[in-house]
Amino acid sequence: MALAIISSGGDAPGMNPAIKKFVDYTYKRGEEAYLIYDGLEGLIDNKIKKATHQDVAGIVHIGGTIIRSSRSKRFFEYKYREQAYNNLKALGVKGLVVLGGDGTFRAMQKFSSEFDINFVGIPSTIDNDIYGTEYCLGVDTALNVIRDALDKIRDTASSFNRAFLVEVMGRDCGYLAIVSAIISGAEICVIPEVKFEKEALEKKLSQEIKDGRNYVLAIISEGAKKTSEIHSWIQDTFALETRVSILGHIQRGGNPTVYDRMMAFDFTIYAIDYLLEHNNSNKVVVYNSGKFDFMEIEEVVSNRYQLPQHLLNAINYLD
Amino acid sequence: MALAIISSGGDAPGMNPAIKKFVDYTYKRGEEAYLIYDGLEGLIDNKIKKATHQDVAGIVHIGGTIIRSSRSKRFFEYKYREQAYNNLKALGVKGLVVLGGDGTFRAMQKFSSEFDINFVGIPSTIDNDIYGTEYCLGVDTALNVIRDALDKIRDTASSFNRAFLVEVMGRDCGYLAIVSAIISGAEICVIPEVKFEKEALEKKLSQEIKDGRNYVLAIISEGAKKTSEIHSWIQDTFALETRVSILGHIQRGGNPTVYDRMMAFDFTIYAIDYLLEHNNSNKVVVYNSGKFDFMEIEEVVSNRYQLPQHLLNAINYLD
Amino acid sequence: MALAIISSGGDAPGMNPAIKKFVDYTYKRGEEAYLIYDGLEGLIDNKIKKATHQDVAGIVHIGGTIIRSSRSKRFFEYKYREQAYNNLKALGVKGLVVLGGDGTFRAMQKFSSEFDINFVGIPSTIDNDIYGTEYCLGVDTALNVIRDALDKIRDTASSFNRAFLVEVMGRDCGYLAIVSAIISGAEICVIPEVKFEKEALEKKLSQEIKDGRNYVLAIISEGAKKTSEIHSWIQDTFALETRVSILGHIQRGGNPTVYDRMMAFDFTIYAIDYLLEHNNSNKVVVYNSGKFDFMEIEEVVSNRYQLPQHLLNAINYLD
Amino acid sequence: MALAIISSGGDAPGMNPAIKKFVDYTYKRGEEAYLIYDGLEGLIDNKIKKATHQDVAGIVHIGGTIIRSSRSKRFFEYKYREQAYNNLKALGVKGLVVLGGDGTFRAMQKFSSEFDINFVGIPSTIDNDIYGTEYCLGVDTALNVIRDALDKIRDTASSFNRAFLVEVMGRDCGYLAIVSAIISGAEICVIPEVKFEKEALEKKLSQEIKDGRNYVLAIISEGAKKTSEIHSWIQDTFALETRVSILGHIQRGGNPTVYDRMMAFDFTIYAIDYLLEHNNSNKVVVYNSGKFDFMEIEEVVSNRYQLPQHLLNAINYLD
Repeated sequence: MALAIISSGGDAPGMNPAIKKFVDYTYKRGEEAYLIYDGLEGLIDNKIKKATHQDVAGIVHIGGTIIRSSRSKRFFEYKYREQAYNNLKALGVKGLVVLGGDGTFRAMQKFSSEFDINFVGIPSTIDNDIYGTEYCLGVDTALNVIRDALDKIRDTASSFNRAFLVEVMGRDCGYLAIVSAIISGAEICVIPEVKFEKEALEKKLSQEIKDGRNYVLAIISEGAKKTSEIHSWIQDTFALETRVSILGHIQRGGNPTVYDRMMAFDFTIYAIDYLLEHNNSNKVVVYNSGKFDFMEIEEVVSNRYQLPQHLLNAINYLD
Repeated sequence: MALAIISSGGDAPGMNPAIKKFVDYTYKRGEEAYLIYDGLEGLIDNKIKKATHQDVAGIVHIGGTIIRSSRSKRFFEYKYREQAYNNLKALGVKGLVVLGGDGTFRAMQKFSSEFDINFVGIPSTIDNDIYGTEYCLGVDTALNVIRDALDKIRDTASSFNRAFLVEVMGRDCGYLAIVSAIISGAEICVIPEVKFEKEALEKKLSQEIKDGRNYVLAIISEGAKKTSEIHSWIQDTFALETRVSILGHIQRGGNPTVYDRMMAFDFTIYAIDYLLEHNNSNKVVVYNSGKFDFMEIEEVVSNRYQLPQHLLNAINYLD
Repeated sequence: MALAIISSGGDAPGMNPAIKKFVDYTYKRGEEAYLIYDGLEGLIDNKIKKATHQDVAGIVHIGGTIIRSSRSKRFFEYKYREQAYNNLKALGVKGLVVLGGDGTFRAMQKFSSEFDINFVGIPSTIDNDIYGTEYCLGVDTALNVIRDALDKIRDTASSFNRAFLVEVMGRDCGYLAIVSAIISGAEICVIPEVKFEKEALEKKLSQEIKDGRNYVLAIISEGAKKTSEIHSWIQDTFALETRVSILGHIQRGGNPTVYDRMMAFDFTIYAIDYLLEHNNSNKVVVYNSGKFDFMEIEEVVSNRYQLPQHLLNAINYLD
Repeated sequence: MALAIISSGGDAPGMNPAIKKFVDYTYKRGEEAYLIYDGLEGLIDNKIKKATHQDVAGIVHIGGTIIRSSRSKRFFEYKYREQAYNNLKALGVKGLVVLGGDGTFRAMQKFSSEFDINFVGIPSTIDNDIYGTEYCLGVDTALNVIRDALDKIRDTASSFNRAFLVEVMGRDCGYLAIVSAIISGAEICVIPEVKFEKEALEKKLSQEIKDGRNYVLAIISEGAKKTSEIHSWIQDTFALETRVSILGHIQRGGNPTVYDRMMAFDFTIYAIDYLLEHNNSNKVVVYNSGKFDFMEIEEVVSNRYQLPQHLLNAINYLD
């Protein structure tokens, strides 16, 4: 039985270790391994290649995804999904390992409901915003990239009276922002999920600045869309020269950390074992309380990820 | 009630975030926080200081331990332990948070059995060799330092026909070696716990070299004491120019990773809460399957850590 | 004869190694060394401390400046400069080593023209915009921080069809932008000194995108104030999803590189030797064609730094 | 006229940026560019390929050399050199850019004296031991890798009373060791060029340890072959637990720094321009006092690199 791997939507560090393990472990299990290039677009256009060990040599330490990714409008149309299916069928591919997020999983659910194709999704997004799993591939690497930036700012921060505002990724989910704020000791953290309480903070920080605090670090989640507003507010309220950094896609690069490599390997082994041992697979591998498990794609995509309460609590006592 | 924190034995990255959180959270709980400098030696010599927030500002991103550490022969003698106790008593310190490993925990068990002093240990050693916990503070940082070194070697490795042998830390425990071997795709991994099977490996690698493999990476655990032997064996058997790196204490430095900071904060909060809510505390905080718990020090020190089976298995199919 | 060191204006990586060498080398020369904290504000407020070797132990690898910096409005008034002079006189300080940029040097020129105080300036700014010297302290570290960010973006860039726009520091000077563009192979570089030629670039890039180019990297100098404009232009012209990173003060942090440490040591030794061997010193140490020399402050501050022609040329053939 | 590039002997960071620039600039000059794979062995075996821009896309940030390198015994025999020449002649290659060190340059001198082939060498070795040039490609990257290791050791060093001994590369030349010692403030530096004066150092350090010094850092050049001896000496003389790190080939990896990329680009442009404008080229590009120039290979290989006096002096006053 032949299996294929695809990455779709935004890339995440850890995808390359997953691709490497996919090839090695599929062959080890005695099956054929295929690489689908350029995401769903490539699936439609038949950019599918039988994998060799050589294709995936020396890639575990590289960010991004060597098989590239895309967003596909065509995949919303039946005729292109049919074409995609025919490409796979011609090669004898029965199962797909899918590296992606919510949008990708929804597309796969549709796809596998129409055609005789099985898949297991591996939650892969630095936003960490997928329901049903505590961890998505790429998050640890992204957090350590942010940490490195914040550590650098800390060096210069203590040289001058200034405020620093750092915008981190997260469209709808403040996970990266909140963890970054905790591990860097930020004074301010603004995320989409929580109303930002200016008054209380203003009182607390004003007192601290009077007592000698000489810098303020604010972490703003991109999805909160408040970077300019907070910038002005800090300058006006505390009379502190305020500098903005927007990390952007730096957070998606970087050599995958040890944690992301180990998770990539484990996620992939679970995915392959499941595909080889079940028909009609429509699952996502999830990771909770130190254990891997499987969840119906239906459940994953029809629920919304909630930040764990202990992280939400942390926002209220940042120090 | 006053609490104090001490680091003892080898230092580990993550100790500074733990010390920072100890001070902040102890005051937050309404108690007094003390820092014991220079480990058990300093405890004997009364190098104990009431902590201020200023003492621990700007330390979360620094490796090592700002309160320093030591190994103490004097602490084996009753009179010095008594002196240590009197120092604590004079300051009203009733509970200790202890950052250390097996040896330290044994010393504390003795100490708290003789005197009215409570403690909670936080397993802190990059060797990850403490019974009862899947994770010891510092391991994630150490692994990422090793990863960075291995990624650098990989760059140069593919430029030339050569073998590379990298010795990593681990006195009795091959944890760092085995995880490093997995995430770097090493061909050879030698650890104290497993007999090294030369013959099988020789056959496998000879074939691969004949088929075009142009480098070999070997990870050797310091505790295996086989670095020279493997060095000669590779050179003689495979006729590959072989270069040795011994990482040494580089593995103990480095800015603590996000994971080690979060673990440090959580370990410390659990330790403080326990100390404040129990008398006669004689525990170690342990972390298993994503949850924190407490284990009697007696149980921790009288058992030996075993590498998890899935890691041991991995040695047999390194690729 | 006593000497003092001060950092003023924006901080730069390499200031700490300079401060360390200042203390060590001044004592080695048999003179007394003083540290002035908080820049010109601290000089006015007498935050001056006799230095010990302990004060500067373990600082060479830290970004920023441990003696902190400031901008001072008061120093524009004679009475505060007089107060500053009296502070120095009371301690017997005859010479100052001044870490700063143009603005600071102008202030020192005024100061030393009025009072019996000598100084030697060390050009210190990551903008590299000081007349008379090819190199300012901090530039190599800042460039390597930018490089690291660009290398990370490159990983993710090749995973997707996208454009990346990275804003780097440089108020009036495109040095950081242009060197970053060269070493990262950016397709677009916009700096304050050069008119941005959209038409030619549009033609060239449109052709390349038609031929298969799947990402575009643009480096924009902060001082060009064109980040939003270029952002819209790329999206509209090339129909490429475009992501922005603004590096901000991350560029001022980071452990000083080897080059910046060596330059810091050499700049400082030249400065001290000069102060000890001349009266009426009013100089800046400059570095050109691999040699150190001295230039009258008057000449430094009354001319404008020009980007070297070979760098300007490079903008026209970025590839 | 066709040109080719080859890397030979040990690899150095910066070779990839040189290869990238070679391809881009040769085509820009209107000539054909060839890549010779696997060093002199590949030259003999005709592993020569016409370069495309695609071959060298995305390589500037990677250590090592994508065209690989080798050591060749066969090249010492005339018949193999003749074969190598015939390979080049068949492709119309008239000039070679040669990335390598002394040994390679000697081989090329022989080669070009026998056959109608021109070459320009680019000094490429992290040892920085080539006569006639202050700088060899790769040195800045190697030094920053060492610096990073030493900064990590510094973190842990100050946590404990200990000595650290770090062996760095350098077969016959102490350049890396001496610069590393200076920028890290090492107490001991042992290089092949200078007799190690134990007595003076013993006296100085014993006093400092008595005065409170709690760690000692020693940098040993690999070529001094004294790592074990110094290890024992420190442990016995100062009664300090002493830990050894041998950096090995980590020093050859790592993303090329900004300085090495700029130097790689400039070295390569000078080399190509020279080849295209001269017949009978037998030169090495050298860099001194901030300027590029050319030196006869004869002069380069028949003299021995000497450490500059100011670096040798530094050994006598390490602090």
